[in-house]
Amino acid sequence: MNNIPEPAQLPQLPEPTIRRLPWYLALLSTLRGNKEEYISTTRMAEALEVAPSQIAKDLSFLGVRGKTRIGYEIDALIATLRNFLGFDRRHNAVMVGVGSLGAALVADSGLGRYGLNIVAGIDVDPDLVGTSINGVDIYKPSRLPELARFLRLRIGVLAVPVESAQSAADNIVASGIRAIWNFTPVRIKVPDGVVITNTSIYSHLAVMYNRLSMLNID
Amino acid sequence: MNNIPEPAQLPQLPEPTIRRLPWYLALLSTLRGNKEEYISTTRMAEALEVAPSQIAKDLSFLGVRGKTRIGYEIDALIATLRNFLGFDRRHNAVMVGVGSLGAALVADSGLGRYGLNIVAGIDVDPDLVGTSINGVDIYKPSRLPELARFLRLRIGVLAVPVESAQSAADNIVASGIRAIWNFTPVRIKVPDGVVITNTSIYSHLAVMYNRLSMLNID
Repeated sequence: MNNIPEPAQLPQLPEPTIRRLPWYLALLSTLRGNKEEYISTTRMAEALEVAPSQIAKDLSFLGVRGKTRIGYEIDALIATLRNFLGFDRRHNAVMVGVGSLGAALVADSGLGRYGLNIVAGIDVDPDLVGTSINGVDIYKPSRLPELARFLRLRIGVLAVPVESAQSAADNIVASGIRAIWNFTPVRIKVPDGVVITNTSIYSHLAVMYNRLSMLNID
Repeated sequence: MNNIPEPAQLPQLPEPTIRRLPWYLALLSTLRGNKEEYISTTRMAEALEVAPSQIAKDLSFLGVRGKTRIGYEIDALIATLRNFLGFDRRHNAVMVGVGSLGAALVADSGLGRYGLNIVAGIDVDPDLVGTSINGVDIYKPSRLPELARFLRLRIGVLAVPVESAQSAADNIVASGIRAIWNFTPVRIKVPDGVVITNTSIYSHLAVMYNRLSMLNID
């Protein structure tokens, strides 16, 4: 794994733009599957329910401009989007907590296609330490600083029980890792200079249950 | 599975409130683990970096009021929160697409603790149809309407490749299921009266890569 290029610096983009870019990428991938070669802003706008001017503006951040009447070349735009989103580089990550959700995420090889390269797992359970999931070895928490150095870990994916979420996050930060992808429902506190991204799947579930209940179908 | 109570109607809550409630629940679970019995709004506010007045307001939607000087009883508040969030009921769900991420989500028994009861899987791959994951049987897409009826399916969890996301969603809706939990990066279109909740894990990854790149540590 030592001959894999490190992630290059990405241009700073507004967060709403970054959030829309994967929609564009998904649409373009579908169109490419249909053997299409070009797409106009107007057609993208219709498919995605985003204003054409917004799409043009988002893509201009990437230095991409469509051709009059033809639009954007799909293959080239896919490559540019994957590059700007960081999906075409490998970001070495450690899964902290390989219980139910953590083990599932390690087993999800799909994340690798989006640049997340999980190379180690951490767990407090002595029955799990020394085992491996999908070829990913599981270590005890005290090994993290050493692993962070030798495996060039950039991201800690947090999927521990709520009770130990903050202390596990502290351990990630202490090991020198500067980004945490938080799958717990805990509001993690990190020092300045550490990136935290929350994926609140349980909040999403709660919102869905609530809206579903409003439909009054049961 | 037929003797499990159906979800009751939940009170309508503002979405930002629903999104904060799981934070409260996580904090309270941790405190209960420490054998604490009561918590004040002030202490919750410090731990979560949410204004005390906001917390009091959110909890008042649930009909919960703290006692002067003592605060909220932790056990009772946990039970109330789990009830209002719908986590203490079983919502029967079908996993549509049991490739990498879908299979991982089926294997994640943790979702069951938050009320998501995955009782069937759907896939187009003939090698997967007829198999089972974690005791969940996998069927072909044409079986969905029948399964929806017999298994009282309420939620379709969407984890198919982007190219087939919209058609798989259409199939879910046609089977009478009124809620879709979308894990694909595709902007799914659904008719009025169908709930769609997006968990955009790839967008979150892109935001994290971008912010990490800004730290300029490589």
